[in-house]
Amino acid sequence: MASETPASRISVVLVAPRNPLNIGAAARAMSNFGVFDLRLVNPYEVAFREARSAVKARDVLARAREFPTLADAVADCALVVGTTSIGHRVLEHPLRRLEMGGRIIRAKLARAQPTREQLTQGSVALLFGSEKFGLSNEDLSHCHWLMRIPTRAEHSSMNLGQAVAVCLYEIARSPTAARQGIETRAAASAAELERLTALLEEVLAASGYVHKRVEGSTELKLRRLVRRMQLSAHDAQAWLGMLRQIRWKLR
Amino acid sequence: MASETPASRISVVLVAPRNPLNIGAAARAMSNFGVFDLRLVNPYEVAFREARSAVKARDVLARAREFPTLADAVADCALVVGTTSIGHRVLEHPLRRLEMGGRIIRAKLARAQPTREQLTQGSVALLFGSEKFGLSNEDLSHCHWLMRIPTRAEHSSMNLGQAVAVCLYEIARSPTAARQGIETRAAASAAELERLTALLEEVLAASGYVHKRVEGSTELKLRRLVRRMQLSAHDAQAWLGMLRQIRWKLR
Repeated sequence: MASETPASRISVVLVAPRNPLNIGAAARAMSNFGVFDLRLVNPYEVAFREARSAVKARDVLARAREFPTLADAVADCALVVGTTSIGHRVLEHPLRRLEMGGRIIRAKLARAQPTREQLTQGSVALLFGSEKFGLSNEDLSHCHWLMRIPTRAEHSSMNLGQAVAVCLYEIARSPTAARQGIETRAAASAAELERLTALLEEVLAASGYVHKRVEGSTELKLRRLVRRMQLSAHDAQAWLGMLRQIRWKLR
Repeated sequence: MASETPASRISVVLVAPRNPLNIGAAARAMSNFGVFDLRLVNPYEVAFREARSAVKARDVLARAREFPTLADAVADCALVVGTTSIGHRVLEHPLRRLEMGGRIIRAKLARAQPTREQLTQGSVALLFGSEKFGLSNEDLSHCHWLMRIPTRAEHSSMNLGQAVAVCLYEIARSPTAARQGIETRAAASAAELERLTALLEEVLAASGYVHKRVEGSTELKLRRLVRRMQLSAHDAQAWLGMLRQIRWKLR
């Protein structure tokens, strides 16, 4: 499960969480994005116990560790990043939007071939405060810098489990994937599209839709129309089958 | 609240949601990211009623509309995008990773000056299936294309509220923000750093840390050390104050 991937060097630290559903939701998001090290500082005991019994993300919860203080929880981490919805406190710390902070963390985790020392102690801690109060000034003083999710100013406070999911997604997301295409079957070839165009024209002529004297311009219109469909090879075959049947019926 | 922004042209459609907490969580994430049009298809009645009583995101829930069928729910939408964790069904549809799908949706929403017609009908529907089964093949057939959140293959299914949060974050995120700096106070000026370097050197000399004969190289080392601190103007002042006090005590 916990093979060495960049994400496996992230630790999620929940400070004083109160709601078992939120602890469970945080653990589930971690599991979704391949993050397995959950640390709780001074959790509400009942909440932690109830969360452990949750069906989802059992692996993450079983390995979760409890710490008496935040200093203990992050002692072995090389970078400690606090999350906050924007407020007056943030002026005391460097604050980055998640897009930028995530990029820095991603770069740090991607550094090739961590040394043995980095493997044992070089993890990145992501801190999330309690549902009601967020991280305190005392908590924030343990952070190298802060990160905020770019929410609306009028409603900036996010649900804990959702905030964890969004932060881990940003770190896990692949910038290059935004420039990649569709994960699907092969597109139809030009030859298939040309066969389809010809067959469609034939069917339309047989149906009386196309008048002999305007046929030339119709051919071009149909060729463009067919290209705009952006057909997969599979769908092109389906269309050819349908049109052949219609042609047969029209005769 | 619902001023015309790109996000306000997104509709979130929950198909057959069963858990009031998830409906509430989806609504809260929508409010966080400035999306206000929530549509429910065939929700479990009790869940919808309970969700409406949630304190958070009351605006979104108060405006939420119920539809008997998915076709009704998306009738006025110009683009219908389904979400799915990867599975055999996806082969029937073009599937994009969220990074790419989000980019396309963002571009569509950002198109300058929508016409009156686009304003009334040109919204983008994001579909999310029920907690247990996701979207059915029948649901998916209403979609132009599908989008998947890049989760681990071994645990791809996300919590509904978290999936909504992550998708809306990707659409709301600013690619350029990833290249921007820190939102914080001004950095210390070179003059302040030089004052700090000199004062530190003075204090170290007074303390006996610096030996007269190596002073030259020490100055360079200290200058570099101080620059590596990447101090804000505010923190530089704090350091100057501390060192002045120490110098006074050392005399």
